[in-house]
Amino acid sequence: RVPGGPKVRVLGEGTSRASHTMARAASGVTHVSSLSALSCRAALLTGRFQMRSGVYPGVFSPDSRGGLPLSEVTIAEVLKAEGYATAMVGKWHLGLGINGSFLPIHQGFDHFLGVPYSHDQGPCQNLTCFPPDIKCFGTCDQGVVPVPLLWNQSIVQQPVSFPDLVPLYNKFSRDFIADCARRGLPFLLYYASHHTHYPQFASQEYAGQSRRGPFGDALLEFDGSVGQLLEALQESGLANTTLVFFTSDNGPSTMRMARGGSSGLLKCGKGTTYEGGMREPAVAYWPGHIAPGVTHELASTLDILPTLAALAGAALPRVALDGYDLSPVLFGSGKSPRLTMFFYPPSPDPLHGPFAVRLGKYKAHYFTQGSFHSDTTPDQACHGLTPLTPHLPPLLFDLDSDPAENYDLLQGSGSVGPEVLQVLKEIKLQKVLFEQHMRFGESQLRKGRDPALQPCCVPNCTPKPSCCRCS
Amino acid sequence: RVPGGPKVRVLGEGTSRASHTMARAASGVTHVSSLSALSCRAALLTGRFQMRSGVYPGVFSPDSRGGLPLSEVTIAEVLKAEGYATAMVGKWHLGLGINGSFLPIHQGFDHFLGVPYSHDQGPCQNLTCFPPDIKCFGTCDQGVVPVPLLWNQSIVQQPVSFPDLVPLYNKFSRDFIADCARRGLPFLLYYASHHTHYPQFASQEYAGQSRRGPFGDALLEFDGSVGQLLEALQESGLANTTLVFFTSDNGPSTMRMARGGSSGLLKCGKGTTYEGGMREPAVAYWPGHIAPGVTHELASTLDILPTLAALAGAALPRVALDGYDLSPVLFGSGKSPRLTMFFYPPSPDPLHGPFAVRLGKYKAHYFTQGSFHSDTTPDQACHGLTPLTPHLPPLLFDLDSDPAENYDLLQGSGSVGPEVLQVLKEIKLQKVLFEQHMRFGESQLRKGRDPALQPCCVPNCTPKPSCCRCS
Repeated sequence: RVPGGPKVRVLGEGTSRASHTMARAASGVTHVSSLSALSCRAALLTGRFQMRSGVYPGVFSPDSRGGLPLSEVTIAEVLKAEGYATAMVGKWHLGLGINGSFLPIHQGFDHFLGVPYSHDQGPCQNLTCFPPDIKCFGTCDQGVVPVPLLWNQSIVQQPVSFPDLVPLYNKFSRDFIADCARRGLPFLLYYASHHTHYPQFASQEYAGQSRRGPFGDALLEFDGSVGQLLEALQESGLANTTLVFFTSDNGPSTMRMARGGSSGLLKCGKGTTYEGGMREPAVAYWPGHIAPGVTHELASTLDILPTLAALAGAALPRVALDGYDLSPVLFGSGKSPRLTMFFYPPSPDPLHGPFAVRLGKYKAHYFTQGSFHSDTTPDQACHGLTPLTPHLPPLLFDLDSDPAENYDLLQGSGSVGPEVLQVLKEIKLQKVLFEQHMRFGESQLRKGRDPALQPCCVPNCTPKPSCCRCS
Repeated sequence: RVPGGPKVRVLGEGTSRASHTMARAASGVTHVSSLSALSCRAALLTGRFQMRSGVYPGVFSPDSRGGLPLSEVTIAEVLKAEGYATAMVGKWHLGLGINGSFLPIHQGFDHFLGVPYSHDQGPCQNLTCFPPDIKCFGTCDQGVVPVPLLWNQSIVQQPVSFPDLVPLYNKFSRDFIADCARRGLPFLLYYASHHTHYPQFASQEYAGQSRRGPFGDALLEFDGSVGQLLEALQESGLANTTLVFFTSDNGPSTMRMARGGSSGLLKCGKGTTYEGGMREPAVAYWPGHIAPGVTHELASTLDILPTLAALAGAALPRVALDGYDLSPVLFGSGKSPRLTMFFYPPSPDPLHGPFAVRLGKYKAHYFTQGSFHSDTTPDQACHGLTPLTPHLPPLLFDLDSDPAENYDLLQGSGSVGPEVLQVLKEIKLQKVLFEQHMRFGESQLRKGRDPALQPCCVPNCTPKPSCCRCS
C-alpha cells in the first residue's frame, strides 16, 4: 500500500518497563497501551483482545494444558502467506501443549529460539545470573522443571544459562537477518526480550556496568540487543527497507522493589489498569519513511497486526479484530484511527467488562483494583490488598493535564461543566457498543495443568521435575 | 584559570520544576541539589547556605523588613570587581527594604528588570494571565499591594501585566547581551524566571499552545525565553565564549494539583527534604568547552559562585563558603569536588540541624516532615499534616538503585552489611564536622513586617494597599 513499502519488519518487545532502550532507536515515538496488565502477547500477535482467544485469566505455567489456540491467525501467519520468512526469539509464553503443539513454529514462525514461558517460572536459586558466579536474586517458582531453552521444538539447554542467553539470541537474530538479506526474502523477526523482568541477569559484557545495579545491567544488555539488530540491518543494507517497532508489555513490578523498575509519574504499575500498568512508550523507526518526532496519538499493541498487514498488502484474518491500521500516524496525517482504548484487568470477565475506558485525552475508571505486582509503592491504591472497587459515576481524568490520574474531574468543588458531561455520555456509549461485540472465548487457562506437560530434556528421568537437566 | 575562559556568563533559573526547558539547551547535564525547599536564591548568589545570611525561615513578603544583608558578597559583586557588566531579570525575592535598599542594584547588579518577590504575592484575581482575557487562576495573596514591575528601583507597572512580562524580559536580556557585545564587555546575566510557578501565565505567542494546559503554556514560554537568550548569544557572536547554566530552585508545588507540576519518580515535592523537593536537573552549556554528555556527580546551586569566580580568575569572598568550584566536573576529570550535600527544611534551626545528608550515592534522613506544598499526592509522607519525625538510626537510601527513596537499607529482613555500617559511620562524621562550622546568622525574616514598606507607585494614595495602581 505504501509506495516503496518495507520488505522487512523487526518487532522488538521488552518486559516490565524497558523504555530506556528507546534512546538507541528513537525516531517516531508513540504511547502504546497494553491490553491487560498481563497477557498482551496474544493480543500483539493476533490483533485481538486476549479474551477472544481465551488467553485469560493470568498467564500460562510450564504445565498448562492450554495455549493460544492454533485457530487464531497470528501476524506471523499473515506475513508468511505473503512470502515472508518469520522467526521468533525470546519469551513465548503462549503455551506449550502436548508435544509442544502450541509453540511458535505452529503459529507461523519458521524458526524459534527461546524460552516457552517467563524465565522466573522455574527454580533459579542455584543458577548464575551474572558472571562470574553471582547467583540469581530472590525466589523464582518452585516445584517445576528448570527453565529450558528451546530451538524450534527441541530443548537445547536445561536449565538455561542466563549469562549466555542474550548473546545467543543476538547471534540467532543477526544470522536470520543476514540470511534473509542474502536470499532476498522479506522477513518478520519477533524479538521478545526477557529483560528487564525479574530475576535480572546479564552477560559478561554488561554485568556490573550500570550504576543502577542488576536492573540497570539487564537494561544495558537489552539496549545492546537493540543496537545489534539495528547494526545487522545496516550491514545487510536493509536499514531503509525495514520497519522497527519497539515497545513494552506492561508497567513495573514494584513488588520487586529496587529490582522492579518505575512508572515515573504514572500511577501504580503491573497488574493494574492505571496508566502505570498500561501505558508504555513505543518507538517506530523506519529511516526515510517515518519522520522523526513525537506523537501523543492513541495506539495499542492490538494495532500491530493490522498495520503490518496493510504494509505488506496482506488480507486481514476474517475474524473480529480489535486493532487499527496505524499507517496514518506513522506515514500520513499523523492522526490515529484509534479513538478509544479499553482496559481489562488480569482476570477479565464479561460481567465487569473493561475496568477503564480511554476516549481522547480522557480516561474513565469504572472499576479499580490493586495488585500485588504493584506493592511497595507509597500509593495504597496500587497495593494487592486494595480490593475491587466500583465507581459510579466513574473516576474521570484528563490525562493531558493530569497523566498521574490524581485529580478526578467529577470530584471537588464546583459543578461539572457541559464538556465533561458530554464526554461522560460519549464514553458510556462507546463502552456499551464495545461490550456488545466483545465475545469471551473459552478460557485456555482454566483448562488446568498437567505436570506431565512440563518440558524435560531427559524425558524418563527421576525424580521429576528436578532431574530435567542436560549437561 | 581555564585557557580561553569565558568572557561572559548567563545564568538561568526557573521555579518549580521547569526541567523540560533543558531540551533546548542540553549539552552537559548534572543533578543539582537545592539548598532548602524554599530560599535557595540567597545561596545561589552567595555560595553560602541561607542560614548564614539569615534568609530563613521561609521567604520574604512584600512588607518584610529584612532582606539579603548588603554585607553578603554576591556573584554579581565578585564579577563586577573583575570588570563584568551585570544584570538581573525576573524574580528577585531577597528583600525590598526601606527605599528599596535590598534590591539587586545594591547587590552588584548594574541593571534590574523584574518583580521584587514571587508573582503570587499580590492579589491576582482580576488580572489577565492569558490573552485575550483569561483571568488568573486560584487564590493569590490578599491584603497586599498589586504585584509591581521594577526597573532598577522604580516601579514601571503596578499591577504587572502578566501576558506582557516575558516579552519585556526577553527584550531587556537581548538588548543587554547585544550592548555588552558591542562594548566588548564580559557580562553576567541572572535570569530568574517566574515560570512555572503558580499562577501560570503566558503571552499571546504561547497561550493555548500546549496540550498540558496553562502549566504547559507557561513552560513553553519559558522554553522560548531560553531559546531567545541562546539566539542573542549567537547573533552577538558570543555563543562560544559564554557559559550558560540552567537549573531550578525546588520541586513541584503539588498542592496546586494539575497546576503544580510533577517530580516524576522522585518522592514528594516542594517544602520537603526528599528528592522531589530538592533534586533538580541542570544544564551547563558552553560549546567547545563542555563536552556533551550526562553526569551523575553531585552539584549544588551553592557551587555556582565558586565556579564562576574561578573561571573569571576572581578572588573568593573572605567568608565561610559552602560551595565548590565545579570546574573539574565541567572541564576536567568529570569528578565533582563535592562529596556531600546537607538538606535543610524551610524552617531550619541549629537544634535539628540538617534533616538529611547525602554522601555519594547514599542519603540519610535524620528528620522527615511533610509540607502543604506537597499535598494532593498519593503519598501521605508528603502531606502537610505529616509531622516532624525523627529517625534514629536514620532512614538510609541508595539513590542509584532507589532514587524514589522507597526502600530503607536499614529496614527489612537480613542484617546490615559492613559496607552500609561504614557508610553510616562516615555520614555521621561528616554531619558532625559540618554542623561544627555552620553558624546561623540573625534571621532576616524574624525582623517582621511593616505595611509601609510595600512598594506603591502612588506613594500617598488611599485606601492602601489597593490604591497602588498606575495606568
